[in-house]
Formats: sequence, C-alpha cells, structure tokens
Amino acid sequence: MSFLPPEPPEGRRIGAIALVGAGPGAADLLTLRALTQLQNADVVFHDRLVDPEVLALTTARKISVGKDVGANAWPQARINRVIIAAAMEGLRVVRLKSGDPSVFGRVTEELDAARRAGIPVEVVPGITAASAAAASLGRSLTERGATERLVLATATCRPGEVADLAAGFTPGTTLALYMAMHRLATVEAELLATGAPANCVVEVVQSAGTASQRMVVTTLRGMATAAVGLKNPAVVLIRWPKTATAAATPRLEEMEC
Amino acid sequence: MSFLPPEPPEGRRIGAIALVGAGPGAADLLTLRALTQLQNADVVFHDRLVDPEVLALTTARKISVGKDVGANAWPQARINRVIIAAAMEGLRVVRLKSGDPSVFGRVTEELDAARRAGIPVEVVPGITAASAAAASLGRSLTERGATERLVLATATCRPGEVADLAAGFTPGTTLALYMAMHRLATVEAELLATGAPANCVVEVVQSAGTASQRMVVTTLRGMATAAVGLKNPAVVLIRWPKTATAAATPRLEEMEC
Repeated sequence: MSFLPPEPPEGRRIGAIALVGAGPGAADLLTLRALTQLQNADVVFHDRLVDPEVLALTTARKISVGKDVGANAWPQARINRVIIAAAMEGLRVVRLKSGDPSVFGRVTEELDAARRAGIPVEVVPGITAASAAAASLGRSLTERGATERLVLATATCRPGEVADLAAGFTPGTTLALYMAMHRLATVEAELLATGAPANCVVEVVQSAGTASQRMVVTTLRGMATAAVGLKNPAVVLIRWPKTATAAATPRLEEMEC
Repeated sequence: MSFLPPEPPEGRRIGAIALVGAGPGAADLLTLRALTQLQNADVVFHDRLVDPEVLALTTARKISVGKDVGANAWPQARINRVIIAAAMEGLRVVRLKSGDPSVFGRVTEELDAARRAGIPVEVVPGITAASAAAASLGRSLTERGATERLVLATATCRPGEVADLAAGFTPGTTLALYMAMHRLATVEAELLATGAPANCVVEVVQSAGTASQRMVVTTLRGMATAAVGLKNPAVVLIRWPKTATAAATPRLEEMEC
C-alpha cells in the first residue's frame, strides 16, 4: 500500500478487530472460535438482530449498531469509524453479525477500513440462515439428482436498486432468498415468469434456529399468500428439481412442519 | 406413514442419529452443538476427509466410512444400514460429515433411512468450505454493488452424469465450486463460454481452514494452469461482478495470499 497506517495514540497498543458470525440465533450454533472471540473481547458492536442468547455469552461492553432493514441503522461509515477508533484505543473489538459475515454481511467495508487503518482484522465464519433453516426442517439444501446447485440471494441491496432475485434460478436449483418477505408477491411472479413450475416446494423459515422460529411449507404459486404473517428475518427456500415431476407432491414429512 | 417402524431388539431402547457438520477441518470451527453431539456419542461414523483434529474431540468409537471421490467409499446403502443398526442397538450415533451436511452432504438418503426405521434423527449444521475459504482469504463471498448472489455447485454427482457447473453463472455472481479440481480446465472453458470476463478474480483454496490449507489467486482465463498442484478437497471462488471493470485488477491484498 502507498501510505503508512496512522500512529496509535502515544503509549497505547493497537487492538484488533474480529468480524464474527453470530450464526442464526441459537447460542449453541456459534462456532467455538466465535465463542472464544466473544469471551476475549473488550467491546462488542452487534447487529440489532443478534439473539440475546448469544450476547449473554460475553461480559464485554455491548453496543448495538441497530443494523436492520430500514430501522435506525447506523450508517456504515459510522460503524467503520467507531470500530476503528475502539481498536486504536487498544481494545479487542468484536463486530458481531447475524449469520455468516461473508454472506450478505457487508464485511468488505469493515475489512477495508481496518486495513487502511493498519489494524489486524480477521473474519470468523458463522452458520448462515439457509443452513440453519435446513437443519430445522430436517432436510438438505441440495439433493443429488434433483437440486445440485444452491443459490443464495438477498433482497437487501443499495438504496434505489432492486435485487434481481430470479437470476440464476434454473432447473436443478435450490434458491435461498434472504430478507425478501416484504416483496414476496413480486418475487413469486418473477420466479414463475422464469418458467419455474408452480408446484415447486417452498419452505419459509422465520428466525431459523431460534426459540421464536416459525415455518410454512407451501408451493411457489401461492407462497406469498401462504406466508402472510411471517416477516424478516426469514429465509425462503424454493426447490426447482431437474425433473419437474419430482416437485409435484411435497413428501409427508415436509407437510408436518 | 403407512407402516410401523421395526421393533428394536427385546429389552433395548432405540438410540438416535445426529447428522453432524464437522465444518472445514479446524476443530474450533465446529459449532458448540456439534461438539456436544460428539462428546455424547457412543459411535461416530465419519467421512475420510474429516480432520483428525475434529475426531480427537470425541472418545466415542470412530469408524471411517471412507467417503471420498472414487476412493474406497462405502456404498451409501451400506452407510445407511450400519448407522440404523447401531441406533437400533440403542447407541447414540453421530454421522460426521465434512462441512455442512445440508450442502452436498447427501444427507437426504440418511434422513430417509432413519425415518423409515422410526429412529429419531436430527441435522446439526456446519461451516461449509466456501465460508471457511472466505474467512481465510479475509474477504466476503458477496459484495454489495458487485456480487450480490452466491452460487454453490459441486462437480460430484451421480455416476455417469456430469454436473453443469456453469448454470446460474451470471453478472453479479460469486460462484463457489466444490470438488472440481480434477476437471478445472473444462470448467474454465465452460465458464468463459457463458460470456464471463476472462479477468474475473478466482481464488482457489485447498483444505480451507485446516493446517494444510493452500491457496492461489488468479483469473478465470488461466485458472486451471495457475492451480496445477492443488487438488480436492478444494473450493474455487469465481467472482463475476455486475460491472465487469470491477474485476479488472485484483486488489493488492488479494495478491498477497
């Protein structure tokens, strides 16, 4: 890089930043490495959606950065500023994010800011919502011979843009949609327009892996109606098997959710 | 269901089966729930690829089912038979799989077999290789405004079939290919044929998250040559940003791997 990192305040050591995946919510779905980071942290800056059960695992000072769809979120630049400032004070900083920080976690901005400031930074992976939802359903995300590709997409994108959630949805795909509950009727129409069979099995899982989990099993046509009452954070799993007939009838155990 | 589960041998309780994700290899990337399952297990049937560091966490009897690409694997039907038989003996059985059991883990066959036998079965999620690779690279799998969709695909499929690894690869996608090292030259040609820019950034990570991890950062055109010497298990991350120019030059920190 073409510039020197800024000097820390005199007499102080630079701390470190860990961008840590909190997983879906249940405390026992944290990784051991994430737990160690939480236990060793001086301060934890966490998304609003991180479960209290996870936050209870650390005695560090906890600061909510209020990140949520459109709800009192700190601007990213402010988050970057405060985590850098805390690390420059010599603190061990955990930036705790729901799920896996590498999947729709906007970790790039924080990594770049830390590197520009010359602060040691690492990423600790977490269980992403699609995996937690599959485990709760007791069902795989991929099935040999039917859905051999997994596509993760999010409805959350840059202000003024609209995510193309139907891109990449082809026969043989399980599509996992994050944060799409507020536009599920539009998404249903867009996915049907790709030629996906109306009877594709759809599983909607709200707050996957937490005590407040709710789920609905339905089909692509009608999913928005079937999922009325469920809201973000949720993941919507839509399975388009290679042979469309494989999706004709949800199996018994799928209907029991 | 239309049939009764078989009776356990007289005087014995039926055990239980947990299909547990071992994560990428590093023991501290296990979830707490997976660790508890390993510690409470009577017997662990594990993939050959599960790291010894993870196996060392349990005192249970450990049996390798040798699962690997083309190497002395037990047939799936035999795996199903032995885990069912062990649970029918009243044992707490862990079926330990690399990564996340729900992602290319063939968990459906084992779930169905356990349910048919009337044995309690659960899925414990794990960190999948793509997430572990991203954490090792210190880089997100998705980047707002550039790659807002993540596609996971595997080259491992039914005997006689060839996976279509280029399906769903469109601008705005990070493609994570599993177990594709043995046909990387073909995949390179197939991906270029989709219209993907030759200079898409490619990260190849072998044994992500383990002590023997190796990685190469290169571009789509030339990736097979650049990755010569790396082999499965590996994940190949290929980034096709929405605006192709964003992929023109790998950033400094990406080249330092």
